[in-house]
Amino acid sequence: MLDLIRPLVVSNNSKIVLLSLDGLGGLPRPETGKSELETARIPNLDRVASEGACGLLRHVAPGITPGSGPGHLGLFGYDPLRYLVGRGVLEALGIEFDLRAGDVAARGNFCTVDGAGLITDRRAGRIATELCAQLVERLRTIRLPGVELLVEPVKEHRFVLVLRGTNLGGRLSETDPQALGKAPLPVQALDDASQRTAELVNAFVDRARSILADSTPANMVLLRGFDRLPDLPPFPDVYGLRAAAIAAYPMYRGLAKVVGMDVVKTGSTFADEIQTLSQHWQSYDFFFVHYKDTDKAGEDGDFDAKVAALERFDSFVPKVEALEPDVIIVSGDHSTPSIMAAHGWQPVPVVIRSRYSGADPVRAFNERACAGGTLGTLPAHHLMPLVMANALRLTKFGA
Amino acid sequence: MLDLIRPLVVSNNSKIVLLSLDGLGGLPRPETGKSELETARIPNLDRVASEGACGLLRHVAPGITPGSGPGHLGLFGYDPLRYLVGRGVLEALGIEFDLRAGDVAARGNFCTVDGAGLITDRRAGRIATELCAQLVERLRTIRLPGVELLVEPVKEHRFVLVLRGTNLGGRLSETDPQALGKAPLPVQALDDASQRTAELVNAFVDRARSILADSTPANMVLLRGFDRLPDLPPFPDVYGLRAAAIAAYPMYRGLAKVVGMDVVKTGSTFADEIQTLSQHWQSYDFFFVHYKDTDKAGEDGDFDAKVAALERFDSFVPKVEALEPDVIIVSGDHSTPSIMAAHGWQPVPVVIRSRYSGADPVRAFNERACAGGTLGTLPAHHLMPLVMANALRLTKFGA
Repeated sequence: MLDLIRPLVVSNNSKIVLLSLDGLGGLPRPETGKSELETARIPNLDRVASEGACGLLRHVAPGITPGSGPGHLGLFGYDPLRYLVGRGVLEALGIEFDLRAGDVAARGNFCTVDGAGLITDRRAGRIATELCAQLVERLRTIRLPGVELLVEPVKEHRFVLVLRGTNLGGRLSETDPQALGKAPLPVQALDDASQRTAELVNAFVDRARSILADSTPANMVLLRGFDRLPDLPPFPDVYGLRAAAIAAYPMYRGLAKVVGMDVVKTGSTFADEIQTLSQHWQSYDFFFVHYKDTDKAGEDGDFDAKVAALERFDSFVPKVEALEPDVIIVSGDHSTPSIMAAHGWQPVPVVIRSRYSGADPVRAFNERACAGGTLGTLPAHHLMPLVMANALRLTKFGA
Repeated sequence: MLDLIRPLVVSNNSKIVLLSLDGLGGLPRPETGKSELETARIPNLDRVASEGACGLLRHVAPGITPGSGPGHLGLFGYDPLRYLVGRGVLEALGIEFDLRAGDVAARGNFCTVDGAGLITDRRAGRIATELCAQLVERLRTIRLPGVELLVEPVKEHRFVLVLRGTNLGGRLSETDPQALGKAPLPVQALDDASQRTAELVNAFVDRARSILADSTPANMVLLRGFDRLPDLPPFPDVYGLRAAAIAAYPMYRGLAKVVGMDVVKTGSTFADEIQTLSQHWQSYDFFFVHYKDTDKAGEDGDFDAKVAALERFDSFVPKVEALEPDVIIVSGDHSTPSIMAAHGWQPVPVVIRSRYSGADPVRAFNERACAGGTLGTLPAHHLMPLVMANALRLTKFGA
């Protein structure tokens, strides 16, 4: 798809705003038979749906529940089955670590081992975040030849390990045996290119074992989810767009940065984000604006809170419209139905409104109504070509 | 899709029932403008459709009419364009022949040849099934080095030939010239791996010619549809499900066996099948329950009989619901519109109902209504991932 798009891209002065509500999609509450979107009073979103073309986005494949990585890559136009973001990379992005091309990142846990080296607690009793930071300081003293080791505390027993250097491979097995009473496993390379990296990681783990020997309960480390940054064609290059990401949460800033968007500074509330949007209006063509509250309420299983979050979001829509974007898109990275209290596989409502988005019978912005829209149920990574077309930024294909 | 699913599978205690109505989909009768499903009184199916998520299943590709093999493989989650079931294999499954991995099966016809060896009747006047059995006894006397030859009567002039041995190839041309006045063709290998098998088959045909010389009109054989069992990843392994097939007809038992389901013994009526379902409820996670009457009526071009078959089926739905499955799916392997009196390419209504199947505007279970459902029109082999998701048996993809 990206290869198809790139040669067709033309430039103009249009402005595009992608409003992404994290965990937007939901499910009916059994008591009422209505979903969060169907329950909420969202007159502005309903109006945009009436004026635009609606549908449902499927981020990975039918029945597949997307993590935050695949959910966002899909929205940005990258096939999430082709471009994978590993757990280590996501953990690093979540603390806004400045991950660079070629870096290999892993999720780390402090754990407890007994005198024989066997694991007795995979999370070292969930040590305080402060202690984690102190122990990370110790790990930072480790030096290995030909590679830079970067260790960052995350929260409680969790930290991030990043290897930086040339010719590192990210295809490595995990050291966590996922069971008590076993010793941590040595890392094994899963391809030839990762052979030397495996040796480096094993040397790091050996040194960590010595350094932490006296720090029970956090006297050992476990490493998982090794990966490199995916090698993505940059979003601004593919689409010819000056692209800005506005997100209060670090992980989403990180994901936008992975695809090469400019991450602009913003505050911690959605009101701050909308103000930031307004301030940067002249400097960019494309704005990715992230709204977190819907996902948070859904993950908490709090149907009413998700309804309230949708209504709060709705009240900001006129402020975005006041900027007169040429194309406005409202959708999300995955569903988080309150009755599941977790991410879900259900496709996510989407509306595209532009002068050219077309006629559509949909009059309300919710799962059931959008199922009848002209966009149909489409792979999330097919959204960006539609967005570009609505911005008149794609020329025709073939003579 | 199977490679995507497998690492995401998790286990739980959920129960899944797939009710497959053979030839379910239909077309409007010109007199009324209503299809069989739209004509039938099916209050239970309509209720399930109201409560669940609906759509249409396309088993192979737009405009392609599925045979029973591809129709079922699609339902079971196997891309029918990738996993092919040859006619010989299907014929063997239809008589519940115990086909094993590596076997090569062919459909056989007894035919009539004249003194010059030219075909005068490709079906030997449709000899009686009893005579077929007697002649098959003669063919069973044929012995060839390094291969076991298994011959089974089917019906009238039809029989099955199975070659069992090591390193047999199933890519063979047919001996039937599909015309009168020509001699049967020698078998040719269509790949190197089938070279020796071609020689064995030609030796079998030569011996058959001698053995049958005095049995006019059935004095020669024609062989078609050579194939091996497809090499399918077993359904229980892929999905982590203890899977049972309940089908009164041998071919459908055979197709379920090909994918590695347990075929449980049942009687000859659908009431028997439902009783079998109840009896085995605790022993399995997934039940494939096959209903034949819809297809039979459709093939007969008997619109009213198909309506009646749908109504009979509908009356059994509450018995299935009484078992309280976590996920219930109703669909079919292909359409058999009564006005065509044959399989059709039209996509087949499907409903998935679970606690998490989601909001949907569909209130009736028929072709027209299901076209507006949230599932959209989806490839049949994308159904199983959705089913697994609804059973909460898939973890999320990507971090």
